[in-house]
Amino acid sequence: MTGRGVVVLSGGPDSAVALYMAAARGFDLFPITFDYGQLAKREIGCARLVARRLGLEPLVIDLSALGRIYKGSTSLVDKSIPLTGEFTEPIIVPFRNGVMLSIAVAYARTVGATRIFYGAQKSDARFYADCRPEFIEAFEAAARLGTGAGMEIEGLTSLTKGGVIKKGAELGVPFELTWSCYGQGERHCGVCESCVNRKRAFREAGVRDPTDYEA
Amino acid sequence: MTGRGVVVLSGGPDSAVALYMAAARGFDLFPITFDYGQLAKREIGCARLVARRLGLEPLVIDLSALGRIYKGSTSLVDKSIPLTGEFTEPIIVPFRNGVMLSIAVAYARTVGATRIFYGAQKSDARFYADCRPEFIEAFEAAARLGTGAGMEIEGLTSLTKGGVIKKGAELGVPFELTWSCYGQGERHCGVCESCVNRKRAFREAGVRDPTDYEA
Repeated sequence: MTGRGVVVLSGGPDSAVALYMAAARGFDLFPITFDYGQLAKREIGCARLVARRLGLEPLVIDLSALGRIYKGSTSLVDKSIPLTGEFTEPIIVPFRNGVMLSIAVAYARTVGATRIFYGAQKSDARFYADCRPEFIEAFEAAARLGTGAGMEIEGLTSLTKGGVIKKGAELGVPFELTWSCYGQGERHCGVCESCVNRKRAFREAGVRDPTDYEA
Repeated sequence: MTGRGVVVLSGGPDSAVALYMAAARGFDLFPITFDYGQLAKREIGCARLVARRLGLEPLVIDLSALGRIYKGSTSLVDKSIPLTGEFTEPIIVPFRNGVMLSIAVAYARTVGATRIFYGAQKSDARFYADCRPEFIEAFEAAARLGTGAGMEIEGLTSLTKGGVIKKGAELGVPFELTWSCYGQGERHCGVCESCVNRKRAFREAGVRDPTDYEA
């Protein structure tokens, strides 16, 4: 064991790969996942299934009260804003990674972990400020100063989403258990921004996509 | 108006002064307060009363799920850990200000505020890492990078708790509506760490303490 780490799981493929990569490095892992009022509740179940494959049980933190903040600002929590296949401003949940990381830091302090893993990767960094290496560095500094303790925060920012899928396939990540779709169907819609990115990433990685898409 | 600001209210005197100071500077204010599983639920009602004095209604965010993280680590949320009059390790709620500030940043982005006020002051900085100026600066950097927007975070770190009370008295802060006690009584116990600090601060400020203490 190389120490304890907290992994922020979203139910999506990127954080699943972050979990498997950290496990392969021998960390004693404490996964955490969030209900932040997202419509895609299925994500939480997926995070659970992925963690259980490694014999871990994620701590599920109810942040649904955040839906009151985000309501009206993003289509992920407000049904009145239409979903689109392209990136649009309303899809941003402001500072979502900042909120999740801060709670992960609190959890880390409680269980004696000094490292936090999350699935931020290079393809998202283009659109999401809180997936960028400079944000991770700054947040790490704040986490150290705010806890008075050692704390390292690791994203997957050296990899594109395709690179993440490739790495995950090598480690045997059960991608069929992960969820990307922004919709609420039983299957991945195949047309929302997130489904489009998921399809493209498997294609780029040259990995068979096990996802059951509607379209 | 000099712009919009979010104020993190705790129900205590320090954040009440932060609110009144920001209001005196002409900010259009959006108070936010948190139920993070603390036993002193009364704090939330106090935050509400103080904000309403200025015609403001705080957004109350239910973070009680955090009680699951903190349980066993602090006497503020776990009745099995005894309260003491002196500072002791278990009273720290790890990275509590980091968690509250990150949600305040999300709220700020949603309402178009570029400034966050909270009641961190010099006397707390000795014990609480997340009340120190260097933490505030680092968190501000993370908030800017994580939102891709301007964001300023202001504490009261140039003032001691006595200085805060003095400033508040000048601004007419209704201290009788604020709550400091870590206990669950109807009145301030007068003997817990927080009551002891409250008493001392009024004494140092030379301000009449309107608090109804049990002892």
